[in-house]
Amino acid sequence: MTQAVNRQFYLAQRPSGLPTTDDVILRELPIPEPGVGEIVIRNLYMSLDPAIRGWMSDAPNYIEPIPVGSCVWATTIGRVVASNSPEFAIGDIALGMNGWEDYSLCAAEAASKIEDTMGLPLTNFLSILGSTGLTAYFGLLDIGKPQAGETLLVSGAAGAVGSLVGQIAKIIGCRVVGIAGGSQKCSWLLDECGFDEVIDYKTCGDLTAAIAEKCPDGVDIYWENVGGDMLDSVLLNLAHGARIPFCGWIATYNDAEQRPGPKNLWQLLAKSARMEGFLVLNYIPRFPEGIAAMAQWLLEGKLHHREHVVSGLENALDAFHMLFDGRNTGKLIINIGDMDD
Amino acid sequence: MTQAVNRQFYLAQRPSGLPTTDDVILRELPIPEPGVGEIVIRNLYMSLDPAIRGWMSDAPNYIEPIPVGSCVWATTIGRVVASNSPEFAIGDIALGMNGWEDYSLCAAEAASKIEDTMGLPLTNFLSILGSTGLTAYFGLLDIGKPQAGETLLVSGAAGAVGSLVGQIAKIIGCRVVGIAGGSQKCSWLLDECGFDEVIDYKTCGDLTAAIAEKCPDGVDIYWENVGGDMLDSVLLNLAHGARIPFCGWIATYNDAEQRPGPKNLWQLLAKSARMEGFLVLNYIPRFPEGIAAMAQWLLEGKLHHREHVVSGLENALDAFHMLFDGRNTGKLIINIGDMDD
Repeated sequence: MTQAVNRQFYLAQRPSGLPTTDDVILRELPIPEPGVGEIVIRNLYMSLDPAIRGWMSDAPNYIEPIPVGSCVWATTIGRVVASNSPEFAIGDIALGMNGWEDYSLCAAEAASKIEDTMGLPLTNFLSILGSTGLTAYFGLLDIGKPQAGETLLVSGAAGAVGSLVGQIAKIIGCRVVGIAGGSQKCSWLLDECGFDEVIDYKTCGDLTAAIAEKCPDGVDIYWENVGGDMLDSVLLNLAHGARIPFCGWIATYNDAEQRPGPKNLWQLLAKSARMEGFLVLNYIPRFPEGIAAMAQWLLEGKLHHREHVVSGLENALDAFHMLFDGRNTGKLIINIGDMDD
Repeated sequence: MTQAVNRQFYLAQRPSGLPTTDDVILRELPIPEPGVGEIVIRNLYMSLDPAIRGWMSDAPNYIEPIPVGSCVWATTIGRVVASNSPEFAIGDIALGMNGWEDYSLCAAEAASKIEDTMGLPLTNFLSILGSTGLTAYFGLLDIGKPQAGETLLVSGAAGAVGSLVGQIAKIIGCRVVGIAGGSQKCSWLLDECGFDEVIDYKTCGDLTAAIAEKCPDGVDIYWENVGGDMLDSVLLNLAHGARIPFCGWIATYNDAEQRPGPKNLWQLLAKSARMEGFLVLNYIPRFPEGIAAMAQWLLEGKLHHREHVVSGLENALDAFHMLFDGRNTGKLIINIGDMDD
């Protein structure tokens, strides 16, 4: 081990809006020791996701919020450096819900061992083969139920989840339209990811009209990533029987005040449409199926994805802000340590 | 025929809020003559439903709006008084989407003949065996998918649809909680309809807390009739995997300005819940199944329902207002004529 302390970001107080350096603070603690059935992981990579912002608030949520004073949570991949469990040996690679820190203490039963990387980089297990990819896979196939020939519209299309949703829908045979901000993102979606159409929400003018133009037969599946006014525009363009899976609303996560809901929700009735929330955690028993399918498409060259790796745990809070101002260009991952640390 | 004219309410202009006597005006026209394939019906009963308010507006809807200058639409039952179709003879009883008028001209193929009333009054075919009962039947069973032991919460519980939804859910084996306004309605739900619990929203104080108390395991199915703030309270009390079928929002139909949507819609995500709009028209091919099931439960005494019959076509507009201020005590029907007219 190259350092004698465990650097850790902890939640000092609940943020109002984007978390600041007063809310999330770096501190130094001793490196933990494993109790019975526990392991200590030297974290190598950490996944930063918009959902973490929700865990910082005490609004009703699908899990209890991060306690004030505790390490901020995140999924990490690391190397086992101490083990008090027969399940893990020193040097094993373990994945689990840990925290923004150099070293994590975790129950062996809560960690997954990655034994075969299939020749893929470890970071892929936090992105396309992790909750990001599995959110796209199960949410689209299980909740969206796409049929060949249907029109899929995806917001946050250049994001980690959105870009995979569009590409999986293309594999299924859908017509895929993405909404993204900026010409670079739009070009990537058209040229690399094979989207049929893109809408640049920064330059398109009236978004409702732009959707109507790009989706002349209506939207059969809307992958809802964003919330806010964008959802209202899409609601006016639904096809009969439309499905709206949703697993997060980036536009609203940092609102200090609760904003009003979509004005046009009544369109669900007019179009016999469905809006359905889901959590990737619901699919844990089916994760092996999803990982196998995504890995195969990836190895066959059918899925393009980007990882945006930021080096250094100390940069985690600044990097976290990228998720909300659109600066990241792919799944956001922090490189905390190296294999030989 | 006892009169030489056809009295008819027509849409003079699109209402803002509740339709007034400036919006919906009674006029006299000649009694129509049937063209080829058409029949003329002497209307006996007319169904007044909140959805008619939606058809008066030109906001995007599931059907084109009623044209300004045209007769206001409604489902009616009447006696055929002139026929230019081999499908109908004079004296047959016909049901169809007609209008607020004494005599309706309609295409024979768009009308249904009621050949066997099963000993039930004709008005039942506009209420429990009409779109009201079928909305409850298909919406609850097909969209709500109730399982024995689950908790169903229904708003507008003493209304025509809501009271049937609760009773069908009881037949399925659910625990049924109703929200209604006023002690009379609440007593009827408990004593006659067999609801397990009721919440009087006029006296309960904090509705969110009242729902939490009456639904301690959360709401598995919420039958959404009302919209507005009530939905926000229910969203905070959903069980994991909850379903929210909805087919109308009485609270919002007469809003001159669009009101904000539910603030707590994000709870659909937190609870992996589903909100799904539907129209009873989607189930037309299955209407015989629904009518047979509802008639059997009715004849077995398992369903209690009330019809609120107002006499006289001329009273239709005033009666229509009852739907929005809660004055009606059962399915609202206008008695336009008698069998011997």
